[in-house]
Amino acid sequence: MKKLEKITPQKEDFSRWYTDVIKNGDLMAYSGSKGSIIFKPISFAIWDNIHKNLDILFKKQNVENVYLPLLIPESLLQKEKDHLSGFNPELATVTEVGGKKLNEKYFIRPTSETLFGDFFKNEIESYNDLPLIYNQWANVLRWEKTTNPFLRTREFMWQEGHTIHANANEAKKLTLEMLKIYKHFVESYLAIYVLDGYKTEHEKFAGAEFTLTIEAMMKDGKALQSGTSHYLAQNFTKVFDVKFKNKVNEYEYAYGTSWGLSTRLIGALIMAHGDDRGIVIPPKIAPTQIDIIELFASKEPKVHKLALQLQKLLSKQFSVKIDDSDKNPGFKAANSEIHGTPLKIEIGPKDVANNQVILVRRDTLVKQNLDISNLKDFVKQVSNVLDDIQTNLFNESKKRTYANFIEAKDFEEFKKYIAQNKWVVTHFAGNADDELAIKEQTGASSRCIPFECPINLKNNNCFYTGKKTDKIVIFAKAY
Amino acid sequence: MKKLEKITPQKEDFSRWYTDVIKNGDLMAYSGSKGSIIFKPISFAIWDNIHKNLDILFKKQNVENVYLPLLIPESLLQKEKDHLSGFNPELATVTEVGGKKLNEKYFIRPTSETLFGDFFKNEIESYNDLPLIYNQWANVLRWEKTTNPFLRTREFMWQEGHTIHANANEAKKLTLEMLKIYKHFVESYLAIYVLDGYKTEHEKFAGAEFTLTIEAMMKDGKALQSGTSHYLAQNFTKVFDVKFKNKVNEYEYAYGTSWGLSTRLIGALIMAHGDDRGIVIPPKIAPTQIDIIELFASKEPKVHKLALQLQKLLSKQFSVKIDDSDKNPGFKAANSEIHGTPLKIEIGPKDVANNQVILVRRDTLVKQNLDISNLKDFVKQVSNVLDDIQTNLFNESKKRTYANFIEAKDFEEFKKYIAQNKWVVTHFAGNADDELAIKEQTGASSRCIPFECPINLKNNNCFYTGKKTDKIVIFAKAY
Repeated sequence: MKKLEKITPQKEDFSRWYTDVIKNGDLMAYSGSKGSIIFKPISFAIWDNIHKNLDILFKKQNVENVYLPLLIPESLLQKEKDHLSGFNPELATVTEVGGKKLNEKYFIRPTSETLFGDFFKNEIESYNDLPLIYNQWANVLRWEKTTNPFLRTREFMWQEGHTIHANANEAKKLTLEMLKIYKHFVESYLAIYVLDGYKTEHEKFAGAEFTLTIEAMMKDGKALQSGTSHYLAQNFTKVFDVKFKNKVNEYEYAYGTSWGLSTRLIGALIMAHGDDRGIVIPPKIAPTQIDIIELFASKEPKVHKLALQLQKLLSKQFSVKIDDSDKNPGFKAANSEIHGTPLKIEIGPKDVANNQVILVRRDTLVKQNLDISNLKDFVKQVSNVLDDIQTNLFNESKKRTYANFIEAKDFEEFKKYIAQNKWVVTHFAGNADDELAIKEQTGASSRCIPFECPINLKNNNCFYTGKKTDKIVIFAKAY
Repeated sequence: MKKLEKITPQKEDFSRWYTDVIKNGDLMAYSGSKGSIIFKPISFAIWDNIHKNLDILFKKQNVENVYLPLLIPESLLQKEKDHLSGFNPELATVTEVGGKKLNEKYFIRPTSETLFGDFFKNEIESYNDLPLIYNQWANVLRWEKTTNPFLRTREFMWQEGHTIHANANEAKKLTLEMLKIYKHFVESYLAIYVLDGYKTEHEKFAGAEFTLTIEAMMKDGKALQSGTSHYLAQNFTKVFDVKFKNKVNEYEYAYGTSWGLSTRLIGALIMAHGDDRGIVIPPKIAPTQIDIIELFASKEPKVHKLALQLQKLLSKQFSVKIDDSDKNPGFKAANSEIHGTPLKIEIGPKDVANNQVILVRRDTLVKQNLDISNLKDFVKQVSNVLDDIQTNLFNESKKRTYANFIEAKDFEEFKKYIAQNKWVVTHFAGNADDELAIKEQTGASSRCIPFECPINLKNNNCFYTGKKTDKIVIFAKAY
């Protein structure tokens, strides 16, 4: 039987805290396959809920799901050189089958732009056949040197959207629309505030004309890229000969986009909401929304009867579990907290007599008595509290992010703030080499050129080059 | 724009018919990744419906979903020798990353018994921790030499269940329960009758003590294995040291099962129900259940208005599409048939005047007028017709299967019936070598030892060895 182990406090060592909570929360196990993890029932259920809810939003945008092969022949991936060089050091390569060497090598997909390019080629003839708005839910593999559960693993699960359009404007519009869906989803379902904007030239996707991103702030102040959407222009369609007859009967290459969001969001969820008692899962995405706990080790018949009755009632609307193990109530409460269940309902013999139960919120840990004489009212109140937890988690996330923005007037200030894990909002006129140098010296990377600058800036000159510029960039240390 | 191409009649050439209907029905595309296919929106949506509905049935049995890595280290797969030798010639092997040779090779999973074994080892301590009833939805890869879309592809998608139990009986019971779920699912949702039974020693899974199977009959008479459930006894748990403290405080190895069902069911669906007009998808699994077709090439405002009104009404309960392309009604009707939509609703100007529409069933092609003056009645009637299509498809499948059973008293008769693609139900006392010899001479393999013999047998002796035996085996050519 599982024992609860001590969780290192966040303030003491954030990365040990992270390791402790994912272990205690039964989120993952290490596997014999180095650099990849096992998704245990809770983390897989979170991903399943992300998958299901995001898929509904996609379908409202006429996205259709397809599935393309895992293996990319070497000849296909070599066609787009920028793209290949962006991924090459991380490509897992199949060279033999059953001990026999293959004539052509295959790469395990790190992403599928090339396969989609090759597929699209045969799917369109005229502008009438466009747009094609496809998505696939798939596993991909990138041979990372340093890995971290959920945040950076060799194999991960994601969705990757791939679309082609008859003109550039429509494709650019869709690139932005998908980013808006990501922002809406991460904020409304995962209750994490995200900042949206462009990636700099240095940080954009290999093969894209521009990349849009949403960036989330973790509780230690670091940034986590939570979803990206790329405008590919004709970069892949020219290489893969994806052309169509336009309205004036001329052949033209189609305009592409791609966009993805992955299981690293589970890591974001943990680090955006978790506390020293364990993880905290927002109600809209929680595999279990309510834990019912009987306040006696040995089962008290009246308490147990009420627990079962409330479970049956609440299960019509929520996912509810009763912990009916032999453990004592203190263990059960701590166990529920470690697993991040948004709401606990505690029932003791006195509560049965008084026609009430105790609600305990996971986010604030606030307890309240709740009358159960009118069961319809009771359910409504429980529903309201769950809604309030969802809203509160988001508001706290947003407040925390805003409190962490700061302007740096020069590189000295910049270094000081980055060392404090602040998000530095600043004018920037540097190039890719400057970004590399900044990263080497401070550990910070450019997170985005925000659509809207989140704070009022006092200076107009680049903190690094001193040049005057309109371009505003946010820098931070990132996962 | 797509054109409809001629479909080879089933009687003329069944395999060409198959290729024609999957191409015309937009089910798949070939990919640059040899031996694997692209699942286009319709086939992926069918798989998604299989996934969603089967997952609901699993969860009622307390199955929990997890996700384990794609890559199996060589050292791990080598631990169970029978298992390894069963898969070895088909193992795709990653030997290098980014051009550099790895110290240890990795195999792309052909199935995940070894990874689960390694995982389970650390998950249990005592009988209190058992059973663990896990499942994963995943892609797997087996380097097949000859491939056939959906039926046999190198990469395919499936679910693989893996469980461990505190005693053999419980594990055996679960092996059977999962097979029952498969039978129920394939019969109720895919409307395909299946025969259930044991695999012979020769045909069982590499590493299992016994294998249960459901076998479906295609319209050409051949069999298709549609799902299998394996009792693994302690074969993997001993190898991976998966042990627990039992009730008398002694260490004991756990008892395992595994069970799987894959995207080849899409092939089964096509070959069990399709006809010379295209595929036929049972309503319960159809991505589009109703196509509404306006009986004029140029849009007639009254007809179009009614079409939209009925779509809105029916969409509350069913998935409904209107074909509003510029094609003529004949093309639209044929296009709906090719794609297997269970029900068509045709509307012409006269129908609007007469307050009626025409229903056309995809299974029987029967047309009927349906009054729409009472819309509630209308929806009810549509619902009834869809139910009837579902039932009728299953009944036809069962009838066809039963009509194809036949007894063979000796090998001469056996050869004759197998040449006619019959399913030979017969006593059999042969061994693995005999099965191999039979397959070489006739192309037939043992499909199962049925739980219940489907016909009354006249002979008691083995058709092949002449020996007297109680064992009844069904032989057939198979996909």
